Amino acid sequence: MLRAAEEIAKVLGEDAVCYDADVLEHHGHSEWSTSNSPGRAVAVVYPKSTEDVSAIARICHGRSVPMVPFGAGSSVEGNFSQPHSGICVDFSYMDKIVAFHPDDMDVVVQPGVNWVNLNNHIASSGLFAPMDPSPTATVGGMVSTNCSGTNAFRYGTMKDWVLNLTVVLADGTVIKTRRRPRKTSAGYNLTALFVGAEGTLGMVTEATLKLAPLPQDTSVAVVPFPSIHAAAAAATTLIRSGIQLAALEIMDDQQMAILNAHGSPTVRKRHWAEQPTLFLKFGGTPDSIAADTARVAALLTPSNSTTPDPPALHIARTKEEAADLWAARKESLFTMTSIRPPAHEMWSTDVAVPISRLAEIIAWSKAECSALGIFASVVGHVGDGNFHVAMTYDTRDAAQKEAVGKCVKRMMEKALEMEGTVSGEHGIGIGKKGCLVDELGEEAIAVMRRVKRAVDPRGVMNPGKVFH
Amino acid sequence: MLRAAEEIAKVLGEDAVCYDADVLEHHGHSEWSTSNSPGRAVAVVYPKSTEDVSAIARICHGRSVPMVPFGAGSSVEGNFSQPHSGICVDFSYMDKIVAFHPDDMDVVVQPGVNWVNLNNHIASSGLFAPMDPSPTATVGGMVSTNCSGTNAFRYGTMKDWVLNLTVVLADGTVIKTRRRPRKTSAGYNLTALFVGAEGTLGMVTEATLKLAPLPQDTSVAVVPFPSIHAAAAAATTLIRSGIQLAALEIMDDQQMAILNAHGSPTVRKRHWAEQPTLFLKFGGTPDSIAADTARVAALLTPSNSTTPDPPALHIARTKEEAADLWAARKESLFTMTSIRPPAHEMWSTDVAVPISRLAEIIAWSKAECSALGIFASVVGHVGDGNFHVAMTYDTRDAAQKEAVGKCVKRMMEKALEMEGTVSGEHGIGIGKKGCLVDELGEEAIAVMRRVKRAVDPRGVMNPGKVFH
Repeated sequence: MLRAAEEIAKVLGEDAVCYDADVLEHHGHSEWSTSNSPGRAVAVVYPKSTEDVSAIARICHGRSVPMVPFGAGSSVEGNFSQPHSGICVDFSYMDKIVAFHPDDMDVVVQPGVNWVNLNNHIASSGLFAPMDPSPTATVGGMVSTNCSGTNAFRYGTMKDWVLNLTVVLADGTVIKTRRRPRKTSAGYNLTALFVGAEGTLGMVTEATLKLAPLPQDTSVAVVPFPSIHAAAAAATTLIRSGIQLAALEIMDDQQMAILNAHGSPTVRKRHWAEQPTLFLKFGGTPDSIAADTARVAALLTPSNSTTPDPPALHIARTKEEAADLWAARKESLFTMTSIRPPAHEMWSTDVAVPISRLAEIIAWSKAECSALGIFASVVGHVGDGNFHVAMTYDTRDAAQKEAVGKCVKRMMEKALEMEGTVSGEHGIGIGKKGCLVDELGEEAIAVMRRVKRAVDPRGVMNPGKVFH
Repeated sequence: MLRAAEEIAKVLGEDAVCYDADVLEHHGHSEWSTSNSPGRAVAVVYPKSTEDVSAIARICHGRSVPMVPFGAGSSVEGNFSQPHSGICVDFSYMDKIVAFHPDDMDVVVQPGVNWVNLNNHIASSGLFAPMDPSPTATVGGMVSTNCSGTNAFRYGTMKDWVLNLTVVLADGTVIKTRRRPRKTSAGYNLTALFVGAEGTLGMVTEATLKLAPLPQDTSVAVVPFPSIHAAAAAATTLIRSGIQLAALEIMDDQQMAILNAHGSPTVRKRHWAEQPTLFLKFGGTPDSIAADTARVAALLTPSNSTTPDPPALHIARTKEEAADLWAARKESLFTMTSIRPPAHEMWSTDVAVPISRLAEIIAWSKAECSALGIFASVVGHVGDGNFHVAMTYDTRDAAQKEAVGKCVKRMMEKALEMEGTVSGEHGIGIGKKGCLVDELGEEAIAVMRRVKRAVDPRGVMNPGKVFH
């Protein structure tokens, strides 16, 4: 492995290879994740071009040395951990916007481009890349985990926004999966094969992303409910109505209580009802937003309602208020993390189920956590049947950690019983390999494994991830 | 091969195997396509269940006999032709709706289900499957060609509406690619690998399709332009505006002339301007349609316009008129086919390019056809940068057929120069294998081939398609 690193330094230059222990540690361990591995890469290398990446692959492939691609380090299932050591390939210096085609509504970017920067850069064109994972995330990682976020309800997931990928395969071969049409039925969908493959089939060195027109205007509304079931039922009504909301999120009573107690000053301008709450985002023209808002209000409070106390839909009155309301949703994970007691960590997981089952699994998960006596809260992309549970546990208490792990496992099993998935948006990494077998069965995993062997026969691309 | 057929009859029953010459001919040759092969299957077999299909595969795999899946027979690139003979697997009897989950907005169907029947069956739920290829098409073929149609501008292509597939692999192994959540990041996207693989990786025996809410209301408008360029420029303005049209189609002057001369009585109620014409479909609430229509009218006729003769947007005044206007678009291919002179055939092809290049390639294609002195006309999914050219040629004139073939080839090359694709929605089949290499390069095709060999090492699944 060290010889491979030395050889890479000869081709890319000494500056492109780093052996610093702190750097290796930063690239091999995540504070955000409970799925870490004790393994560390022997070096971090910094390519600047597809050719550099191809050279790295040829060298590592020749020596059967593992390569682990690294983006922003914000993934949470150990997706970039290095259980088999090897060379960590950091795409920080491949952060260029290669070509912007506003008339075609697409943009060609290197994998190190951060999506927030990208959207700021192109905002004046009236276009944007709609996926909104962690604000630190970069395109390479977004592609490789098939990320999503709150915009997924309206815009789908990352797989729906990638027109083509340039990929360096394990042996250094460079392929481009598609050209640049918005639609094609030409041959196998290799783009989709690499999206969500977590870097186990090759390294993405360029991506062409479809862009969407920015809505002329947006607005936000919040509405509390007496129970998770009532909130989920209302969400189903809204989804079935065909009203095209820009986002439809849920936060549970615990999360709402945290807003009041620990939210940022912006968020604490308002006193929040400590009840399960739906967060709705509207997008369109001012007229269409007004019409959508009125339809939502009517659906939530039917004129023939016999409910004594109909849910109170609060619609932002100003742009500023809309931003403040949405901030409450966006800050939730950071707030949770910042209020951890000393020596406590957060176990964050995500599953997705058919939407009619969401209320049931959220309620069940909350009861499970409650029985454990740990602090846990739920935020969810209710419009997609996808939710996150964050559980705080004492790292000094091995029994508690084990109990939390078992609780997460039961949550996966419950999601599968409901024909759901063990990972709505975080991927499998090293953390959920066993659950993936439970989800799809050995035969389907065998097909994945055959594809893996066909594309990477030496098993050098991000080994140990997705499946055993 | 005949022994395999006999063995299948033993397991599935004599009724499930057919050797009738007319049936074999119907399953091996398409009137709609210029990509035919002289090969014919030795038998057509009719499974009724996933187990039947698995039995067929085990038998054929054991004897290394080709299997060619057959749906409605409406594909046009020779996708179901049998150049290597073998067994044709007809899914006509697997036409059941297995489970309808209105609350989850999905439906589980067998591959022989026709999409028009499906949508009629579930219409009262307020949901529909939005892909609209040939009205005869069935789900298995729609999945296998990654079909689309006029609704693709609003709803994407087939790949965006398949939640999971049950697939029988070459050796009879049965896998299910996903469970039933609307969103997942769990493992390789096997669903996307089989969608658009044209039956070369396995046979789809069940599909779970996402459904969309039916728009409350729809409307249609048409607007003629002096040139293809003017029409395409207007289309780009509409796309960039963010107005969410339900469809955005173009028909050229030739097509419009055909409507006047040969359209159905419904279509001929109106005298059509014989100019390139955009067909717009609106969907939503009556209010949102009114708002969208007004925005479209304003965009097409800016108040500061210096155009002496602004384009005349004609908006349907009644439901009936909307249906009549749209019928003109939907009937175009059938009308073209029905007016062929004796001994003439139609060569129909489709390509897609980045949307800014669409006007240029349509104008170029029309000039090429014009130079050949043949009748050719264009209809296009302009919102996707995708268009169809239909060229009529005399089958008795070998030189003319060859010239048309060369013209189609040049059209592919032109699309590729523009970073487009050689197939927007029909697939590759046997007709476009060479062009696919031109589009993606040998290295990318090599990856497809490696995947094919990994999943179907004996090469028995629909051999000779997609790539050599």
